[in-house]
Amino acid sequence: MSIVLMNGEFIPREEAKVDIEDRGYQFGDGIYEVIRVYNGKMFTATQHLERLQTSGEKININITYTVQNLTVLLEELIHRNSLHTGIIYMQFTRGESPRNHAYPIETVPPTFVAYTKELERPVTSLENGVSSITVEDIRWSRCDIKSLNLLGNVMAKQKAVEADCYESIQYRELTVTEGSSSNIWIVKDEVVQTHEANSFILNGITRRKIVDVCQRREITIKEKAFSIEELIDADEVFLSSTTAEVMPIVAINNVPVGSGEVGIITRKLQNYFKEEIFVECGEIE
Amino acid sequence: MSIVLMNGEFIPREEAKVDIEDRGYQFGDGIYEVIRVYNGKMFTATQHLERLQTSGEKININITYTVQNLTVLLEELIHRNSLHTGIIYMQFTRGESPRNHAYPIETVPPTFVAYTKELERPVTSLENGVSSITVEDIRWSRCDIKSLNLLGNVMAKQKAVEADCYESIQYRELTVTEGSSSNIWIVKDEVVQTHEANSFILNGITRRKIVDVCQRREITIKEKAFSIEELIDADEVFLSSTTAEVMPIVAINNVPVGSGEVGIITRKLQNYFKEEIFVECGEIE
Repeated sequence: MSIVLMNGEFIPREEAKVDIEDRGYQFGDGIYEVIRVYNGKMFTATQHLERLQTSGEKININITYTVQNLTVLLEELIHRNSLHTGIIYMQFTRGESPRNHAYPIETVPPTFVAYTKELERPVTSLENGVSSITVEDIRWSRCDIKSLNLLGNVMAKQKAVEADCYESIQYRELTVTEGSSSNIWIVKDEVVQTHEANSFILNGITRRKIVDVCQRREITIKEKAFSIEELIDADEVFLSSTTAEVMPIVAINNVPVGSGEVGIITRKLQNYFKEEIFVECGEIE
Repeated sequence: MSIVLMNGEFIPREEAKVDIEDRGYQFGDGIYEVIRVYNGKMFTATQHLERLQTSGEKININITYTVQNLTVLLEELIHRNSLHTGIIYMQFTRGESPRNHAYPIETVPPTFVAYTKELERPVTSLENGVSSITVEDIRWSRCDIKSLNLLGNVMAKQKAVEADCYESIQYRELTVTEGSSSNIWIVKDEVVQTHEANSFILNGITRRKIVDVCQRREITIKEKAFSIEELIDADEVFLSSTTAEVMPIVAINNVPVGSGEVGIITRKLQNYFKEEIFVECGEIE
């Protein structure tokens, strides 16, 4: 039976309940992070925990823990659950308060929940690539906040599943924004491109790592929105996320991307990304 | 101690807890309604419960109760809590399931919660009117769904509170959409106008009642979006909601609306609305 970290205490999973007037439950009024764990070690934990703080600041949820405090607690959670390969899911909500749209007048402590889940690397998909569809981006204009208001993302992912695809690629008017739970990348004439980090996308930690890797490895990288036409016309397409790493997209709306095979630069980036994991967490299979 | 209706059972308030992997808590994946209660009787209950069904259909949450079943249960809830004047808050989420954006593959029963709260009519504000500010509408493009993804509304309401106002009037580009928890109306040259019922606003039950009243009382009513300029230039402005009824807005961004007094047509509509309440729920003060 697994252990959950709730408001600083380690409790059995089945006791992890929240009040019906937790603002997370009535307004989606909270923020979250998902951190990858390889070999029992967190990958890019500091970046995730710093983004959590930033998300909190954007909607005035006071994260009452430092990055250091949280790191220690999460390491203990991994240990208690003997997690080897998987994820930590964590969220902070604005806490319990009688239902009212505006923030509570009295200071209410946020509700903090974190738990682990075993999850292998998606090695077959990483090898062969995945399929995708394009869908209209119906979400709000503050996608830079990693909030619990995820119904638009949920509906987009559901459309992908119903089309037997791995992910939906969202677009606003004719511009590609991001996936339902990933960032989207194209490669054209050896230039790697992804949407700039503004309020229409979440600036993924994996996204930042890839930008950094490109810069260090002298791969030309352009952080600039691209159109659906450019997406369709790309030599290579991939998505990035905490759980999916650098995931090749080999078909969009049932049409092969480029040759239909995983592209050369995508494959390079996968290998470079694996090296980044190695540096922080050691050898992975 | 109050009683909560949870998944068909009446339980003590302090036992009303939900699992941390309820999809309402992790994705805001659910829908809700607020029903007004006067003299222990629900006002426009059928319309609210039908809209709940419609919201459910729009995001494929299967409301496993008929309008008749729900009516009986909610009447019992009012009775058990001896509620005279107040509201029923109720919500359905997509239920408990291991976290994954797409809908659960196995059929999961929705989580249903309903409770009551005592709440007087806002008689002083109804008499004197309230102040408001204008804010940019940052929400998604499916505001027709009465969902738990309310962070945009929460942020808009918070701005109103910080400006010492009752409500925020939201606009997209230069078009007024609605309040953070209300519909917005203008009166110009004796014509009453409000945003048409499309996916940028929630079609309020109070809104529909006012449209209906106007039509029966031969007041010219136009369901058509208006600009911020038209808002500022209006003779009268009011908002409508389940708890606020027909609420005069006498100032916008610190500038008086028209004469700064509650308008004649607004006052007429308040009285007509009170008659509607009388027909369903009897005399109110």
